[in-house]
Amino acid sequence: MRPLRWRGDVDGCLELLDQTRLPNEVAWIECGDVATLHEAIRSLRVRGAPAIGCAAAYGVVVAAKEIAARRVADWFGELCKACDHLAAARPTAVNLFWALRRMRHCAESVCAEPLDAARACLLREAHAIRDEDAAMCRAIGRHGAALIPPGGGVLTHCNAGALATSEYGTALAMMYTAHERGTKFRVFVDETRPLLQGARLTAWELMQAGIDVTLICDNMAAQVMREGRVSIVVTGADRIAANGDTANKIGTYGVAVLAKAHGIPFYVAAPSSTFDLTISNGASIPIEQRGAAEVCEGFERRTAPVGVECYNPAFDVTPAGLIAGIVTELGVIRPVDRETIHKVIGAALDPVQGGYGG
Amino acid sequence: MRPLRWRGDVDGCLELLDQTRLPNEVAWIECGDVATLHEAIRSLRVRGAPAIGCAAAYGVVVAAKEIAARRVADWFGELCKACDHLAAARPTAVNLFWALRRMRHCAESVCAEPLDAARACLLREAHAIRDEDAAMCRAIGRHGAALIPPGGGVLTHCNAGALATSEYGTALAMMYTAHERGTKFRVFVDETRPLLQGARLTAWELMQAGIDVTLICDNMAAQVMREGRVSIVVTGADRIAANGDTANKIGTYGVAVLAKAHGIPFYVAAPSSTFDLTISNGASIPIEQRGAAEVCEGFERRTAPVGVECYNPAFDVTPAGLIAGIVTELGVIRPVDRETIHKVIGAALDPVQGGYGG
Repeated sequence: MRPLRWRGDVDGCLELLDQTRLPNEVAWIECGDVATLHEAIRSLRVRGAPAIGCAAAYGVVVAAKEIAARRVADWFGELCKACDHLAAARPTAVNLFWALRRMRHCAESVCAEPLDAARACLLREAHAIRDEDAAMCRAIGRHGAALIPPGGGVLTHCNAGALATSEYGTALAMMYTAHERGTKFRVFVDETRPLLQGARLTAWELMQAGIDVTLICDNMAAQVMREGRVSIVVTGADRIAANGDTANKIGTYGVAVLAKAHGIPFYVAAPSSTFDLTISNGASIPIEQRGAAEVCEGFERRTAPVGVECYNPAFDVTPAGLIAGIVTELGVIRPVDRETIHKVIGAALDPVQGGYGG
Repeated sequence: MRPLRWRGDVDGCLELLDQTRLPNEVAWIECGDVATLHEAIRSLRVRGAPAIGCAAAYGVVVAAKEIAARRVADWFGELCKACDHLAAARPTAVNLFWALRRMRHCAESVCAEPLDAARACLLREAHAIRDEDAAMCRAIGRHGAALIPPGGGVLTHCNAGALATSEYGTALAMMYTAHERGTKFRVFVDETRPLLQGARLTAWELMQAGIDVTLICDNMAAQVMREGRVSIVVTGADRIAANGDTANKIGTYGVAVLAKAHGIPFYVAAPSSTFDLTISNGASIPIEQRGAAEVCEGFERRTAPVGVECYNPAFDVTPAGLIAGIVTELGVIRPVDRETIHKVIGAALDPVQGGYGG
């Protein structure tokens, strides 16, 4: 299962699985221009920090194609503008900025060359980002699978699965790998209001893989923990600060507090591209605020009084102190602190910095 | 605002505000027979422990009317059967059993009299239960209003308002009284999945009263607490054991754990009829399990994969140790322990015991 694919050669186009229509419909969107992709990211048709990064990388290839068609003199300047536009689609997930920086760096290195050659380079770089992401997800699975105890229960929030990455997932990669190794376990999936990524995407992915899944409403997590049915909590991440504070889908922080109160280890699974070492701690991570309609009319039907005030932050920040470990493609970071993160991640990170986010 | 009313004299009929259709529609259901009322309770058209108690009391009057129409020889035996049927509508809220016991006790005391006279007695008793409930709600408001700090934030879960009682509410009574006294505060309302009583009912009630209300998804409560915007949490209760363990809408326990983690006092507001002193602690409170459709198709639209396993407990139990106080019509029980509860509630409780629940 893959949430995005590039069809054809350098003149091809990006196709996205429209995740707002899952699980009722499997529909693909053709992103032939940057505006369509920007809308798709903003509307969460493609979502999940690593998947947004991959989509944005291909978006730069799409932008270069648009620029070529318009025969622009300063193609590099135009490409930077397209990158800026894509970077403004969503504020929290750092992989978006990471991928765009990397693509711009690639473009810069070939900006003296003819546009056709440069475009071929950009497509190769986007493919590389996707392939590396897939490899990172497999490695996260290998490093994290052993954390899932045989016969145990795993609780997860939102979707950190194949649909949130190029393929295979982060938190769900641990489950897929454990399942492939023959470990038996049950997964409790928070439905994840307001947009129900848990109910619509995670439950769907896990069922397709033949994993034992039980869907719950977000407010049932504490009860399931109290009943002793949860051995470990694992979620993904949208941005991890240098000290380990982790931004992830709204509700993650509450789940982490509940896990601690019940003595259950809380893990985060994320590739190194999700770390933002330019940010000292979670207080500096920008949190996207979204509209009231998601809360009041999320099901194409009004479920709250007209005109009611809503608060709808899309993310929250879980302090490092609540996180037992962060499972990355480079190994499990444990304990979660500045020193251990620097040791494991610091050297591996793309040296290209600046320009977006942070 | 009242969720139920008796129209006419002893030959009259019970009318219920259909709470499943709020806030989009204000529609009343006529309960001319016990079967209709049983369905209304089971389907949460009337809900909230005290309101269910009042509805069941009037249900016994309706039953007596049905029995009179059928000219049954042993009307008391028939009435007991009707009580049994109503008691089976929902298992957790103790007010249902309390009100039915009281009505049966009343019927027993007049069972030697002609049915017409007995029916008049039953209607008076149902009115008394309703009027006493209203008075208890007002008293809860008076005792609890001072707990809401001026300029503070209150968080509540589900609906413990006028719609959950004969009128005025329990947790919301505290807010209504504080508002009437001129205290300014903001209320954060958990939407309360799966049936959205917070979004549909509590937000609606509070807006109509002119109180400052902000609707959030259940999984945002922790974030709002962390931002320092919550001074006190108040919820209702469906059954309180002798040691103070409190069953209430699913999600309440999680909110109580989060409140403790953030140093926020967590209060319960409930009339003495919600106490079940025959139960030593919360482990003995039966928890209603409801169907998967509420989680997967709760918005008249499928929001999860077909065939997914769901866990849908309607209630959870908050241990007494997490509760700062219980606001009753007799005063605030604080600390929440067996001795204090016995001192405040023990003597006031209806001595009629046995037969249902507990």
